[in-house]
Amino acid sequence: MNEKEIVDFLKRNFKKKEAILGIGDDCAVIEYSKNYYFILTTDCLVENVHFERKKYNWYQIGKKAICVNLSDITAMGGKPKFALVSLGLSEPNFKIIEDLTKGIKEMSKKYKFEIIGGNLTKSEVSFVDIFMIGIVEKKYLKTRSGAKVGDFIYVTGFLGASQIRKIYNLKPPLFEIRRLIKKYEITSMIDISDGLSSDLIKLVENNNVGFRIYLEKLPVSSDAKKISKSEIEAIEHALNDGEDYEILFTADKKEKIPEKIGNLKITRIGEIIKEKKYIGVYKDKIMEIKDRGFSHF
Amino acid sequence: MNEKEIVDFLKRNFKKKEAILGIGDDCAVIEYSKNYYFILTTDCLVENVHFERKKYNWYQIGKKAICVNLSDITAMGGKPKFALVSLGLSEPNFKIIEDLTKGIKEMSKKYKFEIIGGNLTKSEVSFVDIFMIGIVEKKYLKTRSGAKVGDFIYVTGFLGASQIRKIYNLKPPLFEIRRLIKKYEITSMIDISDGLSSDLIKLVENNNVGFRIYLEKLPVSSDAKKISKSEIEAIEHALNDGEDYEILFTADKKEKIPEKIGNLKITRIGEIIKEKKYIGVYKDKIMEIKDRGFSHF
Repeated sequence: MNEKEIVDFLKRNFKKKEAILGIGDDCAVIEYSKNYYFILTTDCLVENVHFERKKYNWYQIGKKAICVNLSDITAMGGKPKFALVSLGLSEPNFKIIEDLTKGIKEMSKKYKFEIIGGNLTKSEVSFVDIFMIGIVEKKYLKTRSGAKVGDFIYVTGFLGASQIRKIYNLKPPLFEIRRLIKKYEITSMIDISDGLSSDLIKLVENNNVGFRIYLEKLPVSSDAKKISKSEIEAIEHALNDGEDYEILFTADKKEKIPEKIGNLKITRIGEIIKEKKYIGVYKDKIMEIKDRGFSHF
Repeated sequence: MNEKEIVDFLKRNFKKKEAILGIGDDCAVIEYSKNYYFILTTDCLVENVHFERKKYNWYQIGKKAICVNLSDITAMGGKPKFALVSLGLSEPNFKIIEDLTKGIKEMSKKYKFEIIGGNLTKSEVSFVDIFMIGIVEKKYLKTRSGAKVGDFIYVTGFLGASQIRKIYNLKPPLFEIRRLIKKYEITSMIDISDGLSSDLIKLVENNNVGFRIYLEKLPVSSDAKKISKSEIEAIEHALNDGEDYEILFTADKKEKIPEKIGNLKITRIGEIIKEKKYIGVYKDKIMEIKDRGFSHF
């Protein structure tokens, strides 16, 4: 039983009725007003799976919990409005609540949303579960569907080895993506949470197409370069490491996508192809890209 | 640090801006349309805290997780529309997903809402966290605020010893409460999750008033009677046991609240008083009611 099989099972069982978009994208989408949709997501950080309490403090954990949800909102083209925080704590004390609050509050100011509720329970293993509600103009809604043959493939930022430094200082490129989608015709979008290879495969599977990417073009992070003995090893990090929380998108090849929006680097890494093949090109060699990203199970 | 101190701390830190109602009631309330609000809540069941896997199956746990959230929606006068399910599983397998789905699906049909998304993660301790979105007509929104001196106090159903039989077969009185609020002027409402004494104290504290209740009038459940050696012991169960998930409300004394709505028993148990005292009357004896309900910490 892999993640895709679970999602397919749940999709069959919970068919959408009134919702515009149900299970299977970065956010669910529901009607809000004439010009706007509400978009909804949930993502959870669990002790010993997503964080270790010895290594990080609750301020950092609070910030990261918000960021992984903001990443989903970003990937739909939206902006956050409200969030609820569901906490499970093994040793609840005021210091933990205070530190978490500090991290969450900082993010809510920076990204302009409100914490409007939550829940607090005992749990032998601590977790921070966030429910986030955003809005998006109907005309700007982006989903995993829409990539078509010939579209170029782009990624934001730098990829690989995010666990080293980036992971508790995530900066979802929300404002930059908002600028991008208002100016350019973006055909599909997904956030890179499980690793570029894994999320790119999800994106093309969803559109019944394939891809060809040029591995030397991948924006390899300096951390990935530092821990690698060769160029190809660094590229493998960029391709397969999880938790980058950058954005992967496609656009018609005629769109003049810039190389930077504000401080956010945008890199063209390849194109959508008709054949359902996952092709990586490295120094004129052709290889098959597999889902080696972080799979939840 | 008790629950009230935490809630007060969070209220100070996360002041509501655009939200109609933020932290501190059964649900958060936000604008939806001319005539409706959206109401939002989250409640979580955690292994070894709220359920034991040896005693109950995942179908029952799925149903209960939905019900504790429906109880919050009921207490605001609303009805559910959408939910997201955030799962943490220690030994994920298809049977668990299937059983949980069966329970959740059954409730979504009965109470007419859609599952539109969720999350799945590994966790050493399993949990089922639900995020539920409902709607309520603006004119019918009920909150913990509004009880005034002289109002009568009512509870639905039967109270006490719910852990014995009721707990995995909860039936939030949502449809009956909807009928009630459309016909009668209800001044305040809260769900009984932590125990009648605890939740009644929360309700009156919120309105800067007190209460006088008549203990012989409490609708003691047959399970509470069975496990008690005396009438007063059974009453103590009804007063202090958690997890009843019935509804507690107040209404102007002139309102002719019926003794039954459909099959739901409604019992008048006392009245709101000006003095901030928590009074229980039992056979002409007067006693002080304390918060002996289940406190989360």
